[in-house]
Amino acid sequence: METVGIGIAGAGNVGGALARRLIDDRKAIREKTGLDLEPRRVVVRDTARDRGLPPEIIATEVMDLVSDEGVDVVVEVMGGIEPAGDLVVAALKAGKPVVTANKELVAARGPELLAIAADAGVPFLFEAAVGGGIPIIAPLMESLAGEKIRRVMGIVNGTTNYMLTAMSETGADYAAVLAEAQTLGYAEADPTADVSGMDSASKAVILAGLAFGVWVSPSEVHREGIDGLEPADFAAAARLGHTIKLLAVAEATSGGVVVRVHPTLIPLTHPLAGVRGATNAVYIEGDSVGQLLFAGPGAGGMPTATSVLGDVISAARGIVAPSVVVPPVRVEVGEHGDFGALETQWCLRIEVEDAPGVLARIAGVFGSLGVSIKSMRQDGRGDGATLLIVTHAAPEAAQRKAHEGLVGLSSVREVASAIRLEGDEA
Amino acid sequence: METVGIGIAGAGNVGGALARRLIDDRKAIREKTGLDLEPRRVVVRDTARDRGLPPEIIATEVMDLVSDEGVDVVVEVMGGIEPAGDLVVAALKAGKPVVTANKELVAARGPELLAIAADAGVPFLFEAAVGGGIPIIAPLMESLAGEKIRRVMGIVNGTTNYMLTAMSETGADYAAVLAEAQTLGYAEADPTADVSGMDSASKAVILAGLAFGVWVSPSEVHREGIDGLEPADFAAAARLGHTIKLLAVAEATSGGVVVRVHPTLIPLTHPLAGVRGATNAVYIEGDSVGQLLFAGPGAGGMPTATSVLGDVISAARGIVAPSVVVPPVRVEVGEHGDFGALETQWCLRIEVEDAPGVLARIAGVFGSLGVSIKSMRQDGRGDGATLLIVTHAAPEAAQRKAHEGLVGLSSVREVASAIRLEGDEA
Repeated sequence: METVGIGIAGAGNVGGALARRLIDDRKAIREKTGLDLEPRRVVVRDTARDRGLPPEIIATEVMDLVSDEGVDVVVEVMGGIEPAGDLVVAALKAGKPVVTANKELVAARGPELLAIAADAGVPFLFEAAVGGGIPIIAPLMESLAGEKIRRVMGIVNGTTNYMLTAMSETGADYAAVLAEAQTLGYAEADPTADVSGMDSASKAVILAGLAFGVWVSPSEVHREGIDGLEPADFAAAARLGHTIKLLAVAEATSGGVVVRVHPTLIPLTHPLAGVRGATNAVYIEGDSVGQLLFAGPGAGGMPTATSVLGDVISAARGIVAPSVVVPPVRVEVGEHGDFGALETQWCLRIEVEDAPGVLARIAGVFGSLGVSIKSMRQDGRGDGATLLIVTHAAPEAAQRKAHEGLVGLSSVREVASAIRLEGDEA
Repeated sequence: METVGIGIAGAGNVGGALARRLIDDRKAIREKTGLDLEPRRVVVRDTARDRGLPPEIIATEVMDLVSDEGVDVVVEVMGGIEPAGDLVVAALKAGKPVVTANKELVAARGPELLAIAADAGVPFLFEAAVGGGIPIIAPLMESLAGEKIRRVMGIVNGTTNYMLTAMSETGADYAAVLAEAQTLGYAEADPTADVSGMDSASKAVILAGLAFGVWVSPSEVHREGIDGLEPADFAAAARLGHTIKLLAVAEATSGGVVVRVHPTLIPLTHPLAGVRGATNAVYIEGDSVGQLLFAGPGAGGMPTATSVLGDVISAARGIVAPSVVVPPVRVEVGEHGDFGALETQWCLRIEVEDAPGVLARIAGVFGSLGVSIKSMRQDGRGDGATLLIVTHAAPEAAQRKAHEGLVGLSSVREVASAIRLEGDEA
């Protein structure tokens, strides 16, 4: 198996997480994708800092990723427009696929970099530049490539969504919420790029470019920040059945593509209204497909590294099998796991006689099988009493035996229903 | 520009919608993707039926799609395992990329068909087989290829989700809701495949295969349908702060991959709880990426055709540029549209003197600029009165002028805030 060498520029949250995963998960990635990926060079600014990486792959010269023949795929996660842009151009011109998470660079120079990549015949991939761990770039490029998209609306900045959620739910004012977000690490000491909408504007440019094929300059995005919002605005929105979100909106109008970022009232019934905290989401309206929602973590080293890694795998597939369109997935026919051993939670509705000791006998059945009861409530009294029992997770086989055991109790008239429950425990 | 010929087996909801879009949107697809796609043969069962397609492309022999040299990409949207399977195998062995929406076939023979495709060096694509218009297959194959996925939970059958939503929201019983769904066309005359969970089980097998690389036989999926659910179950779930959904769940356990379909209580706060009606959604939990949600239309000719078309475009890219990994997107640097002409809705919070005639003067300012008022409410009286005005959509320039006009009114103490509103009007 051919090994594909990976070079990473930048070892911050994303670059560090990526490098460690390439090392720790090398075998798992090989088994899942059929690709052997090896991190060969990680370029850092400060070599003294311990990042938990083998010292022999630590490097300091960004352009070495271009000249090093052991680096087949270049990952740019330094951020900023320069020198990141120089590195990307040089790597693409040298025929190396480039993966980046750099929304600022892609927004500012996207069409130029895509053209250089096309000339060189190598991919330029940037799934992580918008929505962190959410796959949104590839769906726009592929599954939705034939769709006439009308509008894209996104919550694409986690800092401001965290702050707006807090203002909406606690009634706190802007300054208090900003201070709290800074304390918790959700906002930076200088929060300008987030609260002014600049970060969202970069992402809006990229979404618009892929949705409509037209790349608007970031400086032409109509942009309003969240710093003018007051508690009274959230109170007024609530009275109207709405909440306030910082939305990035791109739409095709008769006069061209319009891209804007501003605080926006949206109905509480809208799918974007339920997107809370640092979560990001992109909502797409298309002529044929209707409405789509993609939601997930918009930032963070680990989730963003997942998207970068996905792009690295795509690039590596192109290197290992450049002239064949291989099915990009490896599967094997497999046995299913042991269903009886699967741990599930259940909710049981039991018609009982409201007689002394019935609860003890029911609890005894569960207890004897090692099934622990999470909650129990009784509705009604006497002959018409109903028990509603929610269990903790326990093996299917034990749960089933408990149900059988209940049916055998004289004080149980009927196990009226037994339905599994998910999403309640981690 | 090379033209890529498309052959379609099946002209039902999906095939018909796809063929018409390939014809109607040919120019738009060419401009957006750089690919010229031509539907060259559409195989139908009943040639007498008018489908709004040119008669010269209508055909009746499925295998002609394999022998016809004008057909470069074969689309299988007949459904069922045979003869669809024979067609797919023959087309792949003839070196033709195959796109299908056939979850039953993919679930039953996925690994075999992927292996045949790999041998032939052509893609076998099935984005539309799960979640209709939702991009979920490609994200699992690509962006999430390096992710250690823990669990996939999906609402992957629109018929049952429509029925469960109705039972939950109206208190109606199963038979009444089924009859209504049949009347409205959401459920078939024989609803077995949907209500028994068989349809969901096929999709669960596919999701599990891509998430975990292990393909479980559809017959090994633990499956329970929704036909035993009673109004009392929904009432009990509501008392516990839950609702009931038919979930397809696939997870990696120490004993192997377990795949199951059954009615499930989920907390009302869970992202899947808000997925109403015929909408589908897939929720993915990964070690690094955390939680992702993909939601959208799970069925319907037009949305499903969008996913099929996306796959056709991917296949065509591989034909036109087989030996280069081209950036799969065309963009051009473009001028932004006229922001002043963009129609937006606004919500204004205005401090007014509660004097006679103030509402008329305010309404007059909007009216003179052609901005129509959707709702107006006053809180408080006398000097502390606040007006909350929501406008209908009108051009930004007019909206801004109206705000300026309001500031000039003597009875307006302050326009305390003006925030745009989205998601309220179509």
